[in-house]
Amino acid sequence: MDFNRAYERYYNEYGKKAESLFRAIRESIVEGELAEGMRLPPTRKLAALYEISRGAVTEAYERLYAEGFVKSEAGNGTFVTHHPKASVASTVNSESESSDQMNISVPSKVAAEIKLSKWAKRLQHIHSLNKTVAVENETSPMIASNLASGAGGTDQRKVSPLQPIDFSLVSADAGLFPADEWKKAMYAEIRDAVKQYPQPAASEGYLPLREAIAGGLRRDRGMHADPDQIVLTNGSMQAITLLAMLLLSPGDDVVLENPTYPGIQQAIFTAGGRIGGAPVDDEGIIPQDWDAKLLLVTPTRHFPTGAALSPLRRRQLLDWANRRNAIIIEDDYDSTFSWGGRRLESLKAMDEEDRVIYVGTFSRAMLRDQRIGYVWLPQALVEPFHRAKMLFEPKATGLIEQRALTAFIASGSYERHMRRVRRVCGRKLVILREALAGKLNQWFRFVHANAGLHVYAEWRGDVAEYERLKSVCGAFGVSWADSSRYWLAGMERGQKPGALFGFAHLTEEQILEGAARIELLARQLEL
Amino acid sequence: MDFNRAYERYYNEYGKKAESLFRAIRESIVEGELAEGMRLPPTRKLAALYEISRGAVTEAYERLYAEGFVKSEAGNGTFVTHHPKASVASTVNSESESSDQMNISVPSKVAAEIKLSKWAKRLQHIHSLNKTVAVENETSPMIASNLASGAGGTDQRKVSPLQPIDFSLVSADAGLFPADEWKKAMYAEIRDAVKQYPQPAASEGYLPLREAIAGGLRRDRGMHADPDQIVLTNGSMQAITLLAMLLLSPGDDVVLENPTYPGIQQAIFTAGGRIGGAPVDDEGIIPQDWDAKLLLVTPTRHFPTGAALSPLRRRQLLDWANRRNAIIIEDDYDSTFSWGGRRLESLKAMDEEDRVIYVGTFSRAMLRDQRIGYVWLPQALVEPFHRAKMLFEPKATGLIEQRALTAFIASGSYERHMRRVRRVCGRKLVILREALAGKLNQWFRFVHANAGLHVYAEWRGDVAEYERLKSVCGAFGVSWADSSRYWLAGMERGQKPGALFGFAHLTEEQILEGAARIELLARQLEL
Repeated sequence: MDFNRAYERYYNEYGKKAESLFRAIRESIVEGELAEGMRLPPTRKLAALYEISRGAVTEAYERLYAEGFVKSEAGNGTFVTHHPKASVASTVNSESESSDQMNISVPSKVAAEIKLSKWAKRLQHIHSLNKTVAVENETSPMIASNLASGAGGTDQRKVSPLQPIDFSLVSADAGLFPADEWKKAMYAEIRDAVKQYPQPAASEGYLPLREAIAGGLRRDRGMHADPDQIVLTNGSMQAITLLAMLLLSPGDDVVLENPTYPGIQQAIFTAGGRIGGAPVDDEGIIPQDWDAKLLLVTPTRHFPTGAALSPLRRRQLLDWANRRNAIIIEDDYDSTFSWGGRRLESLKAMDEEDRVIYVGTFSRAMLRDQRIGYVWLPQALVEPFHRAKMLFEPKATGLIEQRALTAFIASGSYERHMRRVRRVCGRKLVILREALAGKLNQWFRFVHANAGLHVYAEWRGDVAEYERLKSVCGAFGVSWADSSRYWLAGMERGQKPGALFGFAHLTEEQILEGAARIELLARQLEL
Repeated sequence: MDFNRAYERYYNEYGKKAESLFRAIRESIVEGELAEGMRLPPTRKLAALYEISRGAVTEAYERLYAEGFVKSEAGNGTFVTHHPKASVASTVNSESESSDQMNISVPSKVAAEIKLSKWAKRLQHIHSLNKTVAVENETSPMIASNLASGAGGTDQRKVSPLQPIDFSLVSADAGLFPADEWKKAMYAEIRDAVKQYPQPAASEGYLPLREAIAGGLRRDRGMHADPDQIVLTNGSMQAITLLAMLLLSPGDDVVLENPTYPGIQQAIFTAGGRIGGAPVDDEGIIPQDWDAKLLLVTPTRHFPTGAALSPLRRRQLLDWANRRNAIIIEDDYDSTFSWGGRRLESLKAMDEEDRVIYVGTFSRAMLRDQRIGYVWLPQALVEPFHRAKMLFEPKATGLIEQRALTAFIASGSYERHMRRVRRVCGRKLVILREALAGKLNQWFRFVHANAGLHVYAEWRGDVAEYERLKSVCGAFGVSWADSSRYWLAGMERGQKPGALFGFAHLTEEQILEGAARIELLARQLEL
């Protein structure tokens, strides 16, 4: 049951939640994603999921009912009635309002069959592999009703379904962001941009920002970067995907941590890389003598488990790369979110043979829609990377934001912001750890981490139990992301289920309340 | 003699012209691009080229002299003295000021040899092919001195070297841009952005802008686009490069117009396409029964000659594609700059089998550093394209600009701006045509065009004569771009030299003065 993308699109368009939800569900029905006979989620569950009021969900359901897309069965739920075989065009034409706005083109009589490239076929293939088995999120009606009626003797006020607590977001607390300082920096750049900068922005990005990044790496991490070896990218994925294309010919062997971020797997696979997954424990990736030409690794804080790579293993990875003449991409996506403890030397700082590529990003520390990442390249890759980026972007994109970020850093706003984030989030992490590890230790094993915006916990029991708990918690307004989608596609899992608890966007009270609810429900279910 | 890129970079950094020029030249010397013994251009020529004062150039030369990079020979010029064998590191370390700022990393003792992918090797190869024979831009001292001393009896006031007239820029007149309206739109978005939009920006771009584009295509061009088939890109090259990767496996045959834009050739070649060049005449590309799976074409206005593709040939290209089951990419980079006359139906509007991909851009109509292009995809390519773009950008880049542009269009500012540009530039085009074609018809054959920001003219004589004229004009402050870099690399040219005269950024007086100077110099040279 996924109409997230449609919802997001309509919400951006209409700004009204009920309207957007209605259109998103209708689209999913028309396109056949929600098949005839499927039951829609209970209103309160959907309300929690999308952080909107139950009234808005009810309104959306009523409009769907009025338009004949769903039927309601008393005491049983709401069901899809529409048959998706009816074409999009005819459905939309039946509503005057939509046909005005949506301007659906008439399908051509004989649409050409378009043959995709090998690259595109790999891209499609990895997407089909990555479709993980959806975790069924429905609540067993009996359990829900038991809980709702107070069976089990718990205090119902604590599990009010009206207060959704969503641990599934992993992002900084937007409220901490110094909005006025940032606006000031942006306004100043817009004033100047209209005058036109003397030269168009080079594809590799605004030099003073590259210099500021080099300065920051030197000051904070003891890393001596040359700004000419740094390229600004639209988020870190652009860097990783371009690197995959520059380094990998079809059939080349690549080692990825397992689990890992799915976008990385897609980039490597699509470039033709043959992926080997390396297991990860509480000290990070376990080094082996891989026969591979490329390794991607997240040493500061493995994604998603949060494990920090031990100093010994860092040394071992570099020795391996030197011996095998391999390249290492060090993805330091989360290094700005360090809440204390000693920060270990980066692989790039230890790299004596210029074979580590260091990728960083500002995307997680700044506003969400700002996409500034960077890559520090070995000298031998500078020119190839420039050329590759220029194929896509002969000029830099987002120059105004690059310039504003430079001023934001120069004025000290960025560093003040990060200090504040570290203080506030560090405290929340302590509370989360105490609350979760204290109450839930019986069911979850928590991986120690002193950085990042989420805590990873491995489930001690079996998959069915985990999914039962997750499903019931969902019905009572507590949700989190699970690790299933991070396991490498097409590989044996044999791993315990895992949960990611994001916390930075929640208040301390919400964190405590969320942990209490999970404990309560786990006891109810007698797990 | 090319230190443009270095100059641009330093200028962005320092904002001071003399400083930037000094650093750019020094870099070129240190890196060996300006070899020992080479003569630097006369100060006035360089001043004209970079649109700076002669005083600034003199200052830059004096600093180079003071630091020992050049020597001066009275009456003969300024020569490079530095031997580039001296390493960058040691050169830079000799200056305390630079070593502080530039933070050059110490080169590693044993830098790893990095093996590039086949994709990257193609990318490097096409770049080496594209290095065109540099047109030697030096002025024969004798001619220059003849002209300067008034030999030939011309009025020297008309060829004042102090007033550079640069036809080589091809961009809209920045002064026409409604800066205040644009600032207002951007400020409003920044106010909102800080509040955070409800959902992150989908990679395919802001839906209301895609809807506005669909609306504009329908209204202005009678093209019925579905916003769901439109994806916003960071300029049009991102669209073309992603399409090349989605459609071409190594060895696939592709037809490009010859001449064409070099970035397109690079994208196709790097994706593995085997390029065939199709000749172009005054009615555009000449159709043939190519054995190819992809054709890229600029029907509205061939780049760079400006020829509009005739209606008959449009029909022939579509028939060819239907017969061969081929795909056509219609690059309509310049369609917004139409100065009158009937606008022909686009290939996409005539496409009955959904095999034409339409690429457009706002980059040329808006501020230069704003990079918003778009692609209207066949239904079969929508999902593959989304996935491909998401590999590089899981979220949209430049959302604020996408939203501001939407508001700018909705308020009518964009249309008012374009009407004004059309009126002003249309008049300039008439003046340019009269001035150039009137005065220079003896030497150049002008290609008729009623759109675009430049006029193309084919040289009637031989290459040596053309280069003599260009070189002498350069010394007297009149410059233009020539077509040599647009011929497909590695293919027989056998073509006449061609000149691109951009005009939109010049005043009517400058256009007239430029044409007069070229005529004067051509007569002087007795071409």
